[in-house]
Amino acid sequence: MSLNNISSNKIFGGWNKQYTHTSTSLNCEMRFAIYLPPQIAQGKKVPVLYWLSGLTCTDENFMHKAGAQRIAAELGMAIVAPDTSPRGEGIADDEGYDFGQGAGFYVNATQAPWNRHYHMYDYVVNELPELIETHFPVTQQRAISGHSMGGHGALTIALKNSKNFSSVSAFSPIVNPINCPWGQKAFTGYLGKDKETWQEYDATVLMQKSGAKLPMLVDQGSEDNFLVEQLKPEALVEAAKTVNYPLEIRMQPGFDHSYFFIASFIEDHLRFHAKYFI
Amino acid sequence: MSLNNISSNKIFGGWNKQYTHTSTSLNCEMRFAIYLPPQIAQGKKVPVLYWLSGLTCTDENFMHKAGAQRIAAELGMAIVAPDTSPRGEGIADDEGYDFGQGAGFYVNATQAPWNRHYHMYDYVVNELPELIETHFPVTQQRAISGHSMGGHGALTIALKNSKNFSSVSAFSPIVNPINCPWGQKAFTGYLGKDKETWQEYDATVLMQKSGAKLPMLVDQGSEDNFLVEQLKPEALVEAAKTVNYPLEIRMQPGFDHSYFFIASFIEDHLRFHAKYFI
Repeated sequence: MSLNNISSNKIFGGWNKQYTHTSTSLNCEMRFAIYLPPQIAQGKKVPVLYWLSGLTCTDENFMHKAGAQRIAAELGMAIVAPDTSPRGEGIADDEGYDFGQGAGFYVNATQAPWNRHYHMYDYVVNELPELIETHFPVTQQRAISGHSMGGHGALTIALKNSKNFSSVSAFSPIVNPINCPWGQKAFTGYLGKDKETWQEYDATVLMQKSGAKLPMLVDQGSEDNFLVEQLKPEALVEAAKTVNYPLEIRMQPGFDHSYFFIASFIEDHLRFHAKYFI
Repeated sequence: MSLNNISSNKIFGGWNKQYTHTSTSLNCEMRFAIYLPPQIAQGKKVPVLYWLSGLTCTDENFMHKAGAQRIAAELGMAIVAPDTSPRGEGIADDEGYDFGQGAGFYVNATQAPWNRHYHMYDYVVNELPELIETHFPVTQQRAISGHSMGGHGALTIALKNSKNFSSVSAFSPIVNPINCPWGQKAFTGYLGKDKETWQEYDATVLMQKSGAKLPMLVDQGSEDNFLVEQLKPEALVEAAKTVNYPLEIRMQPGFDHSYFFIASFIEDHLRFHAKYFI
């Protein structure tokens, strides 16, 4: 498990770094970004927020556009942003922006040719935290958040592994992928036609059967172009009512699906997660 | 002077918008970005900070990466970011990243073929403010700032037009282009071999002869790769001493030339400019 540091930039007194490494889950080289807050310079170990990005993104979008480092520096929190899929030559791909490279959907693919590399679920749940906790001055306190496809990833991973995280949040998440075009396309490709297998990766289904109750914050823009067809937050609201889940969901008037929306509310999310790092 | 709105995104309660228009200074279509803070929704007119970007940038880099909208929303300040050169098919260009499209250097070119379109000085000094003040709810209070090549643009334009601006600031500016490779290449191409004409666009020269004394803040990262060969802030410091110019210059230890540096200190710059908007 060796890491290759490929960039290092000082920001808000801490350091934004990128690393590559050979992933055993994904059978290829992967890149991730990490923000290390200034507190580590005084020998302090810090908790980690994992951020999962949306379709077409890499490890860079969130670190460049969300403005999260300012608040992470104040709170003393590391942020880890993995890439959104295995990537590179020799890795299966698709012409669509919403399937294949840049669109791993945080599942373990079971269908050829995707099952050779597309194991983003295992990567985010097991390999990446182990790598981070081995190589960086962090505690085992973890929170998880993400945007759109990454919001789906954060919610499903947290619901399935609720002991691993103290809280979960999402921006504009795909909350019910088994019932929307993005999810149906991706799950058919990665998991096959048996829809029973899809339910393991659907936040609305998981919320009702997992028994997990970790704190959850969701922000959704009212003017998001994908709201009605793809995101369907009302499905998660209904599920939360059914099982009395502690979901805080906020419809933000006028905001869309972009990083301009994420930048506007990321401070609330970091402060939300900080409350549960004890 | 008609404007074509091509994007609109809500951020921090205000709006980030992009427009295209036919520029009479540049004889081509130009694009700019504007941030309109929430105060304008209450019928308030707001002052404007002009931001000039560096080599290779467009109107987008600053608006996506600096995190300035958060503070502009608080202070009630618009931000306008033009592109860094004329651009498009039929516009003269060069293979280098540091000359031609994306590298207009905020001068009026006198040499063919550049003199047909490359009049970024006139565009930023005259056409753009007139356009902004005609079409948006802004006051005539203006400040100007920029990064690297755009820092050079901000300093020279402010020193030559000190009645137009209440304050000026820069990140990592090229302060003495007549004495560095970037400036010498650009000025030879745009202005010709007569170095007398170059002095009109050199902040270190202008500071000593313009008589201007508007408030000036400069931030420079100590680990900037371009510090020694291209940026040479000590030339500006010497000039300021010679004429007793009110320059506040800060060497920021560990920071580099990137937007991670700008994001870390943009709040100070906006608050600096807000002090002089009376």
